[in-house]
Parts: sequence; structure tokens; C-alpha cells
Amino acid sequence: MKFISLLGATGSIGTQTLDVIRNHSDKFRLVAISVGQNIELTRKVISEFKPELVSVKNQADYETLKGEFDSSIKFTFGNEGLVEVAVYDKADILVNAVMGSIGLFPTLQAIHAKKTIALANKETLVTAGHLVMSAAKENGVSILPVDSEHSAIFQCLQGENDKEISRLIITASGGSFRDKSREELTNVTVDQALNHPNWSMGAKITIDSATMMNKGLEVIEAHWLFNLPFEQIDVLLHRESIIHSMVEFEDTSVKAQLGTPDMRVAIQYALSYPKHLALHDGKRLNLAEIGKLHFQEMDYNRFLCLKLAFQAGKAGGSLPTVLNAANEAAVSAFLNRKISFLQIDDLVEKALEKHEIIKYPDLDAINLVDQETREYIHSLI
Amino acid sequence: MKFISLLGATGSIGTQTLDVIRNHSDKFRLVAISVGQNIELTRKVISEFKPELVSVKNQADYETLKGEFDSSIKFTFGNEGLVEVAVYDKADILVNAVMGSIGLFPTLQAIHAKKTIALANKETLVTAGHLVMSAAKENGVSILPVDSEHSAIFQCLQGENDKEISRLIITASGGSFRDKSREELTNVTVDQALNHPNWSMGAKITIDSATMMNKGLEVIEAHWLFNLPFEQIDVLLHRESIIHSMVEFEDTSVKAQLGTPDMRVAIQYALSYPKHLALHDGKRLNLAEIGKLHFQEMDYNRFLCLKLAFQAGKAGGSLPTVLNAANEAAVSAFLNRKISFLQIDDLVEKALEKHEIIKYPDLDAINLVDQETREYIHSLI
Repeated sequence: MKFISLLGATGSIGTQTLDVIRNHSDKFRLVAISVGQNIELTRKVISEFKPELVSVKNQADYETLKGEFDSSIKFTFGNEGLVEVAVYDKADILVNAVMGSIGLFPTLQAIHAKKTIALANKETLVTAGHLVMSAAKENGVSILPVDSEHSAIFQCLQGENDKEISRLIITASGGSFRDKSREELTNVTVDQALNHPNWSMGAKITIDSATMMNKGLEVIEAHWLFNLPFEQIDVLLHRESIIHSMVEFEDTSVKAQLGTPDMRVAIQYALSYPKHLALHDGKRLNLAEIGKLHFQEMDYNRFLCLKLAFQAGKAGGSLPTVLNAANEAAVSAFLNRKISFLQIDDLVEKALEKHEIIKYPDLDAINLVDQETREYIHSLI
Repeated sequence: MKFISLLGATGSIGTQTLDVIRNHSDKFRLVAISVGQNIELTRKVISEFKPELVSVKNQADYETLKGEFDSSIKFTFGNEGLVEVAVYDKADILVNAVMGSIGLFPTLQAIHAKKTIALANKETLVTAGHLVMSAAKENGVSILPVDSEHSAIFQCLQGENDKEISRLIITASGGSFRDKSREELTNVTVDQALNHPNWSMGAKITIDSATMMNKGLEVIEAHWLFNLPFEQIDVLLHRESIIHSMVEFEDTSVKAQLGTPDMRVAIQYALSYPKHLALHDGKRLNLAEIGKLHFQEMDYNRFLCLKLAFQAGKAGGSLPTVLNAANEAAVSAFLNRKISFLQIDDLVEKALEKHEIIKYPDLDAINLVDQETREYIHSLI
């Protein structure tokens, strides 16, 4: 039995994680969760899974909920609550499925508490990969990827020697606007951007898919997870999202992981690793039915955010923190209809240009850069 | 340094094996070879690689060659020579790249001599998989696949638990006649059949690709190598031969091995296992350049040989021996312009129908069935 803490239990990855736990209740037990503001769903999750610790975002919701359940369930709230869930002593694994750089501090605390980390929060590695990976190494902690792309690479690397890797090939569906030229993006709406062709995900990541920033964040994440220079990481446009990513070895042999798009495969693998367990209601891949898989080179001028991400990643230091914070602030402004779609990469580019890189930022420096970047973006809107 | 014996040194797989050894002379050393009747090439191979033991097919060639080289090289010939090479005491690995069921006995002897077997001779497992695999188990010997399909599966299984496999998916290019209907096959010629779209291989295997018997033999080989029932082995038509084969696990996750068609990848991996070494002049996979990969369900009525192979494999006992011997005899007759292309599967089917299955044939029984089947096929021509 593995005991699990889950940050972001009511989000897209969170609810799919609950589905995996539900269908393998003999193997996984949920002991602690954090949630945002979806209190109705939180009630259901508590009733079904009976976690021992529940952290909510706001104090008001905390006051409401704690009166509704018996005292065997402990309630808490806010940023302190997130950390309390992350380091909960009964948990073996922390699934970090919160959105944005808020996931960083709880992850670091969980690493120090020697929890295995199942990481869906890619901003954690983008914004502070050097701190996270060195803390993981020091504490002998595994960081298991939950993203489908990184899970694919991780699966392909089982039984292999990392030193024989020549290249990672991360596939990209191209997102909602893959068939539009840059000119055609001028007037696209939030609703159009939220309509992803292959994956059902949260709003922020769906916008990131449309700008291709999501792929850029994944490239930086892959750099840290698999300890490879950016020159050995390629991105390949693959419309169908069937090949989730690939690894090329020195002998030109390429391994790929494929499947019907279903985030639960990656989530479950992180929980069951190194085992593959049966996937409840999983749809088996039928390539004959699909007929064709398409591949296309990335156009870095069309997808400017991806180019910016490579630049920020290669420059390193505090620049990826700027990339991530500027993107979070800009996407949030787009979702709130305050800026147009093409302003997202424009704002990110401005923030990157303005920043003076700190070579080895510590956590305080990262938090400061993150905050200043968001303020700068807001000043431009 | 790994010391290598090579059966079939002047054939297609043989010369590619020599290329691998040539380009990693710090890691591999050729100590013994067997050859057929290409004496000119044999001279070159001996001069370049200086093996300690050379076996030729015919006594006349043996007499010729042994006078030409100094006495540090030992010459031998015939079936005894094959075995002498297979069990040569200095060798760590036997690469069995001869064609046809003649490869069986030397393989069994090499297993008893505790050599690692790199197996390109698929007829060995088809005709006597139960004897070969149980001998390998008893002697603690590894059978490493050299076929691109089985190497793909073998690579995908590194670091995995065989018990979590739900399915093997063996890809098939469809061979020279994949776009022809059965009716259109009536008058095809030997030269047309020898023109394979993706792979450059020997004559017999190229005809087997056109009839799809090659895929049938591979299915039976996979059954033995990976210890899976035929119900868990699928064949998928994939024109480009880029995905060399796949493994599906219980969680619906599929792993595939891909690459530019180049037999040296599989040969080298068997020699360098578990390492990937740089491949000399290897062409890296460029999926964007290829653009599309196509997949199609197999038509078992169009490719009758594949259906017959599944039937023979499932029935088991001595029936796969009949399948293989009948096919070898029929293909040989086709290559000698004695029968038409469509008569190949007709003759194989007749031989299968006539045979009374021996449930657990020993080596003598297998040899007898093999011989009787060939005689039966000859009687029908």
C-alpha cells in the first residue's frame, strides 16, 4: 500500500489522480489533500476518500468545512496548509498537481521530508530546477514525471543508460491554433483558445498549448529531469498526440511511448512505478483505426513562445523564472479578457529583455524575481 | 573485448555483422566463421579479419582455401564445420546468420557450449522453439534477437516486467507486392518479388516478405523468444518500416522502437547489449522529413501464409516444422522458376493439411519431419 498526499485534488490532474486511486484502492490510499475554491467537489472527495488532512485555499472555506466533518479529519488552509499536506508524515508520495509557481515551495519541503515526488506542476522545475534537482539528489528522493511527454521519456529510459542518450524528441500537438498563421491569431478569442483538439486539461495549460509555451516549459522541465543540454532536446509537431515523446540513443535507435491520449496513464505510472497496472476503462491503442500519424518540423517564428523558452532555458539562472512568471501573468490577463492572444508572447519577450540575469538564484531571489516580473507585466497592461 | 563466431559470414546479415565488428574493433574480435560458396568474398574476409577458424560449405573449396593461407588459420567444411565454428572455445557469442533450418543443430550445440546466441536464423526457433528455449534455460544462455522486429521488442522490454505485457505488435511493411490484390499475384515474376521496397536482404527472406510468411515466422519466433501465447501477438501493416515493432503493457501504454531501416542497429545491439554504441555512418531518424507513418489492419485472406503460420504456431508440436520446411522447399522452387508465386502458399497449405502432428518432437523427429516435408513438396512440383 502506498500512501498519497495530493496537492490540487479538485483540478484536472487532481481528479484524474483520484480516479486512479479509486480504481486501485488495494494499492493506493489518499491521506492528505489540498484544494482551491471548489468546495462542493471538495465535500465529495472528503466523503469518498476520507483523507486525514485537508487544506483549503481560503480561511472562510476552512471555517465552513471543518464544522461539517467529524474531528478525525484535520483541516487547515493557505500556503502553510499546502506545505502541511506536502510533508504529511504518513504519505510516501506527494502528487503535486497545483498550477503555477505556487507549487515550488511545498515541493522543496516535501523533498526535505524525503517524499517521492510525482510532479505534474511543471512550473516548479522551470522556475527553480537547479534548487529542486540538487535537493532531490541530496535527499535521495525520486522526481517522477506526471506530464505525458516526460512520462513517455521516463518510460523509454527504463533499463537504459542515460549516458547513451543522443537526443530527446518531445512531441507537440500544436494546440488549438496549430492550423492558423500568426496573422490569423490577431483576433482569436479565449473560448477558441480553450478548445484543445486532443487533450482535456485546465485553462492555463490549454492556453499554454495554444501559444506553445507549454512545450517550452516542458523542454526546460526535460532539461532538468533528464539532465541533458538544450542542444539535445528537439520538439516535433505531431498532430495526433499518439506518440507522447521519444528518446534517441547513440546507435540511432529511437524508443517511443505511445497511447490513446489519457493523462491517467502518466499519473498511474508515477504512482505504480516501476510497475504497469491495469488501467480502468483504458482505451487500447488501435493504430490501424487511426491510419496515419503526421510529423512536421516546428516553426519557431510561428510559435514565438517556444523560441523564447529555449532562449531562457539556455541562458539559465533567473531567466526561466522570468519566463514562467511573465507567462503566468500574461495568460491570466488573457483569460480575463484584458489582453489579446498575441500580446502574451509579446509581454513575455519584453520581460525577458528587461531582466538582468542572476546566475545562481536562491529561493528568496527566485521569489523576488517572480514577484517583480508579475508586477512588471501588470504595469504594461 | 567480446569474441565472436559468425555462421553465414558472407550473407546479407553476415557482411553487415562484419561491418559492425570492423567499426568497433576495440570491442569485438571475429574468431571463427562459416561461409557458403562465395569464395572470393571469403578470401577478403579472412585477409581483413584473420579469424582463427574458417568453415566452408564444400570440401573442394576447403582444399583450395587451406593452401592459400598460413597454418595459423584452421580450415574445415560441411555440417561438422558449422558445429565446430558454433562451439569454438574462444568465442563468447555465436552470431547465427545462416539461412534455413540448417541453423538449428549448430545453435543447439552452441547453447550446450554456453555461448550467448545472437540469432538471425529465425527458422531455428520456428522449427524447434521448444528444444532451443528449454536448452537455453537449462544452460543459462541468452538468446538475443537480431531481426529488427524482435530486437525492437527486446529493446522495448528492457527494464520492464514480462508479466505486465498485454500484447506484442509486430509491424510488417507488406513486402514487394503489398499493393497487389491476390488476383494480380497470379503472374508475378521472381525479379518483381525480389524488389523489396524498404529492406535490402537475402533472396529467400525477400520472397518470404512478399508472401508474408516472413512475418508468420517472426510471430512464431516472438512466441518463443518472449514466451507469449499467439493470442497476445498482433501483426500491423506499416508501409514505411520505421516503427520496427511495439509492446503494449497492461496500462495501455505502448512502447515502440523506431529508426531508419538499417539491420546493423539490431545486429550491433545484440553484440553490444545491454549498451547502445555509436553506429558508423548511421542515419538518424527524421520524422519531420518522412512526414507520415501509415498503419493498416492485416488482411489474412490476402496474405494466406500469415494465416497458415498462426494456425501452425497455435497447433504447435511438429506443425511449425512442416510450415518452415514446406516454405523453404516451395520458395526454393519459386526462385528456380519451377512454380508460380501463388503456388508457394498453396503448397505450404497442402503440407500442413497432410501432416499428423507429433506433440513433443525431439531433434530426430524434427529432422525427419523436415526431410519428409521437403520430399512431399518436391513430389507435388
